[in-house]
Parts: sequence; C-alpha cells; structure tokens
Amino acid sequence: MANLNLMRELAIDGTSKILLLVMDGVGGLPLTPDGPTELEAARTPNLDALAARSICGMSTPVAPGITPGSGPGHLSLFGYDPLEYEVGRGVLEALGIGFDLQPDDIAARGNFCSLDGQGLITDRRAGRIPTEVGARLCEKLRKIELPGVETFVEPVKEYRFVLVLRGDGLYDGLTETDPQQTGKPPLPVEPLRPEAAPTAKLLNQWLAEARKVLADEHPANGCNLRGIAKDPGLPQIPDVYKLRCGAIATYPMYRGVAKLAGMEVLPTGETIEDEVETLKQHWADYDFFFFHIKKTDSRGEDGDFDGKVSVIEHVDGALPDILALGPDVVIVTGDHSTPAALKSHSWHELPVLLWAKYVRPDGVTQFGERPCMAGGLGHIHHADLLPLAMGYAGRLAKFGA
Amino acid sequence: MANLNLMRELAIDGTSKILLLVMDGVGGLPLTPDGPTELEAARTPNLDALAARSICGMSTPVAPGITPGSGPGHLSLFGYDPLEYEVGRGVLEALGIGFDLQPDDIAARGNFCSLDGQGLITDRRAGRIPTEVGARLCEKLRKIELPGVETFVEPVKEYRFVLVLRGDGLYDGLTETDPQQTGKPPLPVEPLRPEAAPTAKLLNQWLAEARKVLADEHPANGCNLRGIAKDPGLPQIPDVYKLRCGAIATYPMYRGVAKLAGMEVLPTGETIEDEVETLKQHWADYDFFFFHIKKTDSRGEDGDFDGKVSVIEHVDGALPDILALGPDVVIVTGDHSTPAALKSHSWHELPVLLWAKYVRPDGVTQFGERPCMAGGLGHIHHADLLPLAMGYAGRLAKFGA
Repeated sequence: MANLNLMRELAIDGTSKILLLVMDGVGGLPLTPDGPTELEAARTPNLDALAARSICGMSTPVAPGITPGSGPGHLSLFGYDPLEYEVGRGVLEALGIGFDLQPDDIAARGNFCSLDGQGLITDRRAGRIPTEVGARLCEKLRKIELPGVETFVEPVKEYRFVLVLRGDGLYDGLTETDPQQTGKPPLPVEPLRPEAAPTAKLLNQWLAEARKVLADEHPANGCNLRGIAKDPGLPQIPDVYKLRCGAIATYPMYRGVAKLAGMEVLPTGETIEDEVETLKQHWADYDFFFFHIKKTDSRGEDGDFDGKVSVIEHVDGALPDILALGPDVVIVTGDHSTPAALKSHSWHELPVLLWAKYVRPDGVTQFGERPCMAGGLGHIHHADLLPLAMGYAGRLAKFGA
Repeated sequence: MANLNLMRELAIDGTSKILLLVMDGVGGLPLTPDGPTELEAARTPNLDALAARSICGMSTPVAPGITPGSGPGHLSLFGYDPLEYEVGRGVLEALGIGFDLQPDDIAARGNFCSLDGQGLITDRRAGRIPTEVGARLCEKLRKIELPGVETFVEPVKEYRFVLVLRGDGLYDGLTETDPQQTGKPPLPVEPLRPEAAPTAKLLNQWLAEARKVLADEHPANGCNLRGIAKDPGLPQIPDVYKLRCGAIATYPMYRGVAKLAGMEVLPTGETIEDEVETLKQHWADYDFFFFHIKKTDSRGEDGDFDGKVSVIEHVDGALPDILALGPDVVIVTGDHSTPAALKSHSWHELPVLLWAKYVRPDGVTQFGERPCMAGGLGHIHHADLLPLAMGYAGRLAKFGA
C-alpha cells in the first residue's frame, strides 16, 4: 500500500508526464460462462496495441470482496489507502452536485422522510417524492436561519438533499439522525467529541425548525441527516508527489474528489472529445492528468452490456489523440467494476495496463479481464499504481544508499 | 488481510450459503520433478469440472516460508490473521482430545519427563513412554487437589497430557516450565502480568504435588507444563459476518477450533459419507458450512502418496452430492500442505478454487497445484478467502458512497 511518507521523501521534480485514464466501472463480467466481458467484447484495436506494449495485471480497489463506492475507488487510484482515508458521505454528496465546499464547511446528506402523528418515521424516503418536489422543499428549508453560521440547502435527486453549514468553530464527529428503520423517531445529532457539541446544537436547532417548515408537506414532512462531515484534509498530491495535477471529468463527484486530493479541476465539456480537447489545451501545464470517463459506469448500472461496449469503443477511438500528446507513463483502468450483469458496482478486480518506455512487455496483447489475469503486474492494489507510475516516470529517488 | 472491523461494518444478512470444503493438508509435492502432486495424480472429474467454472489460485496460510500447525491454518481460513490471533498450545491440545473447555478454563499441555537424583531433566519426553503408561500416570495425577479450583488431567498420547484448571480468578499470561534442554531442572511457572500471580502459585503447587506423586515412576518421574492458556476469546464469526455457521468435522481438534470461532459443531460420523449426510440434514439451518476432511493430512503425514490420492478421489466422488444442495459460494482448499514426500506439514501454498455465479472464469480446467498457479485469483492469503466469499455471496454492503 502506498506509503505517503516514503513518497514525500523520495519524490523528485521532473518534466515527465503521467496520464491516469479511468474508465469508471470498466471491470465487467461475461453474460454467459464462455462469453466475453464488456471490455473483451469491445473492438479496441488501440487499447489492445497499447496493452501489447504495456505491462498488465489485475488491481484491487479496496480489499478482496469489498465493493467500493466512487469515493474510495478514486481515493485508492490517487494513492490513498481507502481504509485509512475516508471521505464522509455528506462531503461526497456535496461534491457530487458541484457544490463549492470550503475546507471548514460541515456537509450532511439529507433525506426527506414521512412522519406519523407521533413523529415516528413511516417511510425513510418520503415515498421517493419527485425531484421537483424535493427542490421546492429545499427552497423552503433555505429560509431557516442559524445564529452565527451560514446555511446552504441544495436538492440532489428525489428525496435527497445536501445541507451545508459554514462559519467559525464548526466540527465534525457527529452522529446521524436516521434510525435506519421505520416506527422510530429521527434521532438527535450527538457529538462524538466535546468540541463538536456546539455544532450538534446548531444542527438540532436546524432540524427542529425544519420540522416546523415541513409540517404540512406529507409525505415529506420530516427529514434525516446522514454522513455529517468535513473535507477530510487529505495529504495533497502536489505536496506528496511533487506533481502538478490536472483533473478532467464531466461529472461533479469526480471533479470534487480530485479537488480534495489537491488537483486542479480543468473546465471541460460533456463529451469524450471535449475532454480530449481540454487535455490538449492544458498538456503543457501539468505533470499528472486524471482523465475520467463516466459513461462506462452509467451503462453498467443500467445493465446495458452493449451500451457499455460502445462507450469503451468510443474511448478506444479517442486513444490515438491522447497518446499523440506524448505522455511518459499511461495507466488505464477503472475505479471499480460495474458489470452490466449486476447493474451495480461490484467487488471484482479491475484490469489495468501500465505503459511507459521501460516496461517489460508480458505477452498480453488484448486489454481485457482474462488476458490481464495473466499479465506481468500480477495482482496489484489501486493505491500502488501511482507510486509505480512515479517510478516509471523517473520521479522517485533511490531509497537508501 | 481480512479486516474484521470492516467486515462487521459491511456484513449484511442474506439467504445465500457459503461452503468451505477443507481437505486437510491437501497441498502436495511431486515425487519426481516431472511427476504429479497427489492432487494432480488423483482422478478428480468433479473437482476439475468445478475448477473449470471457478476462479482458481494459490493461497498462503500464514506467511511465505511458514509451516502452519492446524490451529493457525484453520484460524486463517476462518478469516483471522493467524499472527494476530493465536490460540495457546494448551487450548489446542485440550480441543484436540475433545475436552469441553470452558471460556475461563486454564489449559496446559503437559509432558512427562525423566529427572535425575538432582532433579535435572535427563529426557524431556520420558523415553516416549507408551500411551497406556501415560494414561495410568494421569489417573494418579487426578488425585491432586488445589484450593478453590477444579482440576482435570487427561492423557493425550505417549508422554503428553492436558492439565485444565477451572474456577474463578484464573488468568493466563504465564511462562512455561520446560527449559528446552536436558541437564536443567524444570522451571517454575512465572506470571507475566500481576493478575496471573495467583494462577502461577496454584500451578506451582500442582507441580510440587505431581513431583511427589510421580517420584517412583522413572522414566516418567517428572513433568513440564507448556502453552498455558485460555480460550483466546476470538471475535465470533456470527457477530462479525452475520453468518450462522455449522461445522462438520470428524476429529475433535477441528471441531474445537470451529467452536472457538463461534461455529456450531454438528454431530457427525466417521466417514465422508456421514459428513455429507450431516450436511444434508442441516442444510437449511446455516449460512456457512465448514466441511473438514481429515484423512488427506493423515496419509500425507504417513508419507503415503497413493493413500492421499485415494482420499482425494473419495472426496471427489462425494462432491456431486454436496453441490446438489445448491450452495451459492464454494471454496475448496486445505489448511496447509502436507506433502507425502515430506511426511509432515509444509510451508507450500495451497491450491484454491472459488465457485460462485459471478466469477470470471480463468481458463483453469484442472484442480491441481500447477494449474492453479495460473489461476485468476493469483496468490491470495487464506484470511482473505472468507471476505471474498462474502462478496460473492452478496453479503457485503458497498464501502463508502
């Protein structure tokens, strides 16, 4: 597992460039035992040609058997042990809607819920109210004022919203209010450490006001707060690795996680071509690029095998333009698997290829799960990929005399 | 390595069933450089067919180069880091003879030894006295009484016996009496922590009495106590993994270790057919089954290559009946290797196969050491197998948002 102190000690400046190409959820499964996975089914002449000049393997995002959320999957790709460095759900939710979270903000994920006459929860998701209703209720909740702090209430989707508190003296280390079952009332926010007590008091005050504001809004006449958290203050990649980092992603969540890691988020458009264009424009400005493709995951979540194949083929078509920029090290993998067969993230390892001038080719000539199982990288952990890239980029000094 | 806190956090209830089939000591060695191992020599059409639909690999029980005893080998298969969770030798010895050890009992392995006129040890194993002599001497030792505690003395084999103290206020953290060389006297039991001092005093009192009782019994006119320990209070698998666990094993030692891990031990007979019948009877009652085959290890210890091959073929013949029960996840491996060529446990990795609905097949079509070296699981650790099975069984929630 990446040792950040060691990286900090050994990292040296250079002019080499590392490109991390992440196809979100790219790992897949065959639909029949003898069939190909999405990646194997895709016609990917460019990825295959790159694999043939690369060292390949299989990579574990978190640990055997563990299905990662997008947060841990990316933190691990960025070289953080995802079990050591966690980003709270409230923070991820705020990042996911592109909220400009500040380092001292407290962010919570909010869920509208249904309460009965005794204040007991009858539906933890408020009957999955339409997104428009959630947005209207957030408008109402925005009017709640708290002494000495600014509040932000932002709709996410259906019954979900984000609450952010901004001000001095706010601390995380707070319990959630969701009792995780119906027939119980929402719980108060409790501080898990003494300095968080005033923040708990503010949140409970906000919740009491919210209860009044929502009183007539059944089925969304109550709400819960979950994953109340701050920016975790991750060691910053530019400090640890001496890399100027640019992040190119079309979705807010991934831009947000990249920002937490110390990357600069580069404005881009909606398409893969837009992203490639952004990469070209900023090629001279950074040492490390995080290049994120979202739709492999989306099609996997949809259970759309062929759609996922198409996205992969689309990426393959863009690869020559990317490689023409002349990166020194290229890593291609995903943050986690999202097999169309499962319509969800999964625990399966990810195929990975690492290309650089001085790799030892391993005989793998196709970028796919089964070929990569026989690759020269063997079985590796996501968090080891960045240190490995640093080595291949000539950016790590010798350890010891 | 399995992270029990993470498992506790993510484990979810379900109806899926996991079967862990352990062929004790199954890992082997070829008798000639080009020859097959025991597993490769065995005709195993059913295991091979299962391997073809599974993901296979090689698994390390403890650490590279380490030859495990039965305790660590199984603890690791049960998801415990065997270097972190140790079961004392006294406890394992008590479990091995089927002694009904209670959580607060203190158990020690006893060795009869020979003493000269000065009380110095001349033979640490008392000339390997016959088992019947050991049993008769245990009868005599049973008469020793200690204030406030009950004592049990049980013969094991030849010069070995088990001493158990039962009562209030007993603590482990005690030194052994065996100086590990001849020409020295047995050492007193010393407490390694203050609260163990009264227990040390009781044991020293027992040893003084034993010396008198055995005075005329040369060559077994003395004894040593080793591995003085309590049930280590392992985190219980049902609590950590939310699995109701049934253990099926024909030998006391394995039933005992399973019990320490929180499994329910199911009464069974002496044969593999008896064990399969027990599995069938209890199939509805548990989520996880530990199914133990002893004789692969026994024949390995005997140096009986063909005998071990026969046991493996016998297990292969029983496999269809086992699979017909419809497990959701099947793992087949051993606790350690016991190559007939070595007539002992060894440090070699174990072949392992994992079958479940959503595995990525890896092209391995035979269950054997050499085929599994090329398997898609690569090189894994025993303690990661249960978390992996949990993932494949759909029993782990997503980690992080």
